Amino acid sequence: MGFDFDGAADGGVQSSAADTADSTAVMEMEEPELAAESEATSKPSRRRKSEAATAESMAAKQRDISVSEFFAKNRHLLGFDNPRKALLTAVKEAVDNSLDACEEAHILPHITVTIAPVDGSENKFRMTVKDNGPGIVAKQVPNIFARLLYGSKFHSLKMSRGQQGIGISAAGMYGLLTTGEPVQIMTRTSGKKPANHYHVQIDTTKNRPEVILDEECEFDLPHGTSVTITMEGRYQKGKQSIDEYLAQTAIANPHAAFTYIAPDGKTYDYPRQSNEMPFIPVEIKPHPYGVEVGVLFKMARQTEARTMREFLRSDFSRISQAIAEDLLKKSKLSVNMKPWDLTIKDAERLHGVINSTKLMAPPTDCIGPIGEEKLVDGLKRVVDAEFYTSCTRKPAVYRGNPFLVEAALAYGCKDASEAGNTDEEEDTGMPAEKEEKDQLMRLVRFANRVPLLYQQSACATYKAVLDVNWRSYGLGQSRGALPSGPVMLMVHIASVWVPFTSESKEAVAHYPEIIKEIKLAVQECGRKLGMHVRKQRRIKDEMIKRGYIEIYLPHIGQALKDILTLKDPQVEKLVEKLKVTLEKSRTV
Amino acid sequence: MGFDFDGAADGGVQSSAADTADSTAVMEMEEPELAAESEATSKPSRRRKSEAATAESMAAKQRDISVSEFFAKNRHLLGFDNPRKALLTAVKEAVDNSLDACEEAHILPHITVTIAPVDGSENKFRMTVKDNGPGIVAKQVPNIFARLLYGSKFHSLKMSRGQQGIGISAAGMYGLLTTGEPVQIMTRTSGKKPANHYHVQIDTTKNRPEVILDEECEFDLPHGTSVTITMEGRYQKGKQSIDEYLAQTAIANPHAAFTYIAPDGKTYDYPRQSNEMPFIPVEIKPHPYGVEVGVLFKMARQTEARTMREFLRSDFSRISQAIAEDLLKKSKLSVNMKPWDLTIKDAERLHGVINSTKLMAPPTDCIGPIGEEKLVDGLKRVVDAEFYTSCTRKPAVYRGNPFLVEAALAYGCKDASEAGNTDEEEDTGMPAEKEEKDQLMRLVRFANRVPLLYQQSACATYKAVLDVNWRSYGLGQSRGALPSGPVMLMVHIASVWVPFTSESKEAVAHYPEIIKEIKLAVQECGRKLGMHVRKQRRIKDEMIKRGYIEIYLPHIGQALKDILTLKDPQVEKLVEKLKVTLEKSRTV
Repeated sequence: MGFDFDGAADGGVQSSAADTADSTAVMEMEEPELAAESEATSKPSRRRKSEAATAESMAAKQRDISVSEFFAKNRHLLGFDNPRKALLTAVKEAVDNSLDACEEAHILPHITVTIAPVDGSENKFRMTVKDNGPGIVAKQVPNIFARLLYGSKFHSLKMSRGQQGIGISAAGMYGLLTTGEPVQIMTRTSGKKPANHYHVQIDTTKNRPEVILDEECEFDLPHGTSVTITMEGRYQKGKQSIDEYLAQTAIANPHAAFTYIAPDGKTYDYPRQSNEMPFIPVEIKPHPYGVEVGVLFKMARQTEARTMREFLRSDFSRISQAIAEDLLKKSKLSVNMKPWDLTIKDAERLHGVINSTKLMAPPTDCIGPIGEEKLVDGLKRVVDAEFYTSCTRKPAVYRGNPFLVEAALAYGCKDASEAGNTDEEEDTGMPAEKEEKDQLMRLVRFANRVPLLYQQSACATYKAVLDVNWRSYGLGQSRGALPSGPVMLMVHIASVWVPFTSESKEAVAHYPEIIKEIKLAVQECGRKLGMHVRKQRRIKDEMIKRGYIEIYLPHIGQALKDILTLKDPQVEKLVEKLKVTLEKSRTV
Repeated sequence: MGFDFDGAADGGVQSSAADTADSTAVMEMEEPELAAESEATSKPSRRRKSEAATAESMAAKQRDISVSEFFAKNRHLLGFDNPRKALLTAVKEAVDNSLDACEEAHILPHITVTIAPVDGSENKFRMTVKDNGPGIVAKQVPNIFARLLYGSKFHSLKMSRGQQGIGISAAGMYGLLTTGEPVQIMTRTSGKKPANHYHVQIDTTKNRPEVILDEECEFDLPHGTSVTITMEGRYQKGKQSIDEYLAQTAIANPHAAFTYIAPDGKTYDYPRQSNEMPFIPVEIKPHPYGVEVGVLFKMARQTEARTMREFLRSDFSRISQAIAEDLLKKSKLSVNMKPWDLTIKDAERLHGVINSTKLMAPPTDCIGPIGEEKLVDGLKRVVDAEFYTSCTRKPAVYRGNPFLVEAALAYGCKDASEAGNTDEEEDTGMPAEKEEKDQLMRLVRFANRVPLLYQQSACATYKAVLDVNWRSYGLGQSRGALPSGPVMLMVHIASVWVPFTSESKEAVAHYPEIIKEIKLAVQECGRKLGMHVRKQRRIKDEMIKRGYIEIYLPHIGQALKDILTLKDPQVEKLVEKLKVTLEKSRTV
């Protein structure tokens, strides 16, 4: 949202401002001293002074910060750094919610995204995302759309796109901040009931919703939800665009259909690729290994279980009644002890016992991969390449949370150079100086089937790809950089809790276990790539040799003709024979 | 905090667990199918099923998320990803607060950091940071140390290290979660008053402090604060260590003295380098250009001013009474209108007028640089190099917030290869494969005088350095990588509001204005470096030529002797003359 001071000069009012120099001071950014000086001259009484603070004066300034105020000020944490990214983030949050809701309700999603300029403006848009999901119960609408940190997904461990209860309310808040307009929602939960129409907005000081409008309305589907946000934004095709986001989302979600009505009024359809419902994620309990002393203590205070044995058995995964009894015995705790009587010392002992006892790994049937075949199909839809491969790893665990990594690779991409590799390049307005022509690998990242378009270099994926020795797979690589070559690499991380580096969910945090799994998946693809590249080289060498045969055989024929005084047809026959023999002796 | 499942086997209880195979299931991570299978066999009734959700069943699960619960689960956002980084983050948050408090009270800081293992453990530490600051008023202690989003710095625009009201409470929360122990605070605001001793802990469900202990105590300074947190952690020297952090902090804060008592009991002193108080930051009002429609509207509702003219004049920087009147006139609003009567349409109109009117840039005397000279002094204390340079830019503005960038560069560093360049390498347990010997530039980053040790590649600084064409300054550079060479580059960003990419404040967000300023500062250093490198090359070439002279002159002498039949002393004299003449003809 950086304001260009020089740009202000383009405004229509500039000349009048210059005319009335007394009323509006004209000042260039490049002369800050001058600015300070002129202020000092014109109003010396307002010159700032800094007095030493005391404990008392500092105490007087201490106050509570509402979570909405926090995120309004730090809105880049939520993905609202600049108008273009803001528009994408808003679409992404709404689409994530729609896909999650449809999956939970076992509905094959059909989602329509509409972006329309407001009053023909280039920096104000109205975004609508409409789905055929289960709809939202009316009384939940205000909290879901106009309250940060409110939702159903945060308190459960389940593979879903949303997880924090921030996204869509944050998008609504950004719309409110930049245009003053509330979020509009239409939702219907059943064909037997009327639909509800709401206008809600967030009160950032309190982090609570204000309902501006609440009425019944028409809705053309038996069930579903439509959300509309009016916001400052910028629409631009290409890299990191809404178009790219939707194309990638369609790849990772072959069971979903998308219709996209772009700001220019054109409609793009992404039809459903598969009528099969994807893996339906299930919720799991936390694994005891991922729980710290303090958390264990707190869980014991809050459990509904009435004995320690029951608490351990019901509130954690992989603890049977027998294991619970064993753990408690080793911790010198009674199996029938009331959980709320547990002291912090008891918790510490129990924690120690848990972590020195071998427990079964967390269940892993709670996360589902896209699958090796579908990954390659997806890649084929975006790049035309000579070689494709993929690898889906078995689930692993970080901090007690199961996760799974898969990777797919395309080599010899014909359009990869166009697609290129960017990390917010266009947003700085200053593209990197491109002197070299060697094109870097294009990295495409997904987390729980959601494409990640920003902050590539902050991502565990990037770190893992840099750590792989690509030279041994036949690609060039400079230290500290992605490998070079006509390659596109797709990495998907699925987990019941994806650890993102920020609330905007653009990059995966550097957990060592996750980096390790990414490396293993990528290396597997790399090995297959290496074989292909080597084979290609052999073929190429062979072709060159064959070329020699083609070139020199006629000459040999000529020479033999002279030596042996053969006739032309004989020479032809001989050359043909030689060719066949020589070619037979080489197998590719 | 990833748990190593194989590691569990090292626990002393493992063999007994294996003996009682019924009570504790033994399972390797590498066989998840087996795990799922055995579960299915042993307790088929607990097999998870997923039923289609409805709008109603989903509504039943919606609930509020406390900000402490949010950050406890997403603790990597706060810098508590792993035990080693957690210990560093806790020290950093406490030291930041101490430095800020001393500066506000115009006190030259003396800060003592003590890290001691608890009961000789290698993964549990007690960290104490003690300062000679103004102390904290007793009744504020619980909120400051055990409540997230509480503080004095968030609501003001002022250059300070802390800004969010999260840091120290988050460190205390992490300590509580991992060890169950409360935060201990001793503080005294005046030699005439007794000191207070507190034990406080956060109630994460409510985000409110619980006071465990509140008593008077002894304190050996007339004023100051000491905070102690017991936490899971790991202590390791080297890159990204507490030692490195303190060394860099001392460089950026020459007015502060530090004493560091390491876990091995050794004491390290960083004496004060300068008795001059640094620039004392002052608070500013928001600049009108950085304020959006919705914010303007909200500010009008909450102002204490009684007229629109007064509101604009008092709540923003760079709006005088005359400018306020002009802006209101152009917006067709009365100067005496009550601010709380402003409608959103009015706000929109006023916002448009503000942004098309040239206003003076925000005041920039509210931020202070470290300074070109002190930067070079600082560099000299860490690296022994052949060439140093630095550049402090004039203040600029992003989103209405003034900021300033400075850079310093050392070339020909003797220990840079040792120091190397890392971005969380050791934390993954898998260092990048280092095949090449060409060493990359070492990048050292500061924000408001705080060293940033993690997430280098996510930082605007990294992006800017990559965008610079280092080849034109005589360094090697591969596409997408830092330049190579024996170079250390230090970049400092100072602002009334530094936009970090996450709450852990490890990297600066990619605002185009900030990247541009970093590039300009770095390029300025680069140009001077280029001149030096070229001069060095000339000297080197010259040296080689001189070498030739040394080698060949005697032979020429010999040849002349033969031709002209000279005597040996004559030859010597001639050679000497030739040497002087030739050397004179070359100037370096």
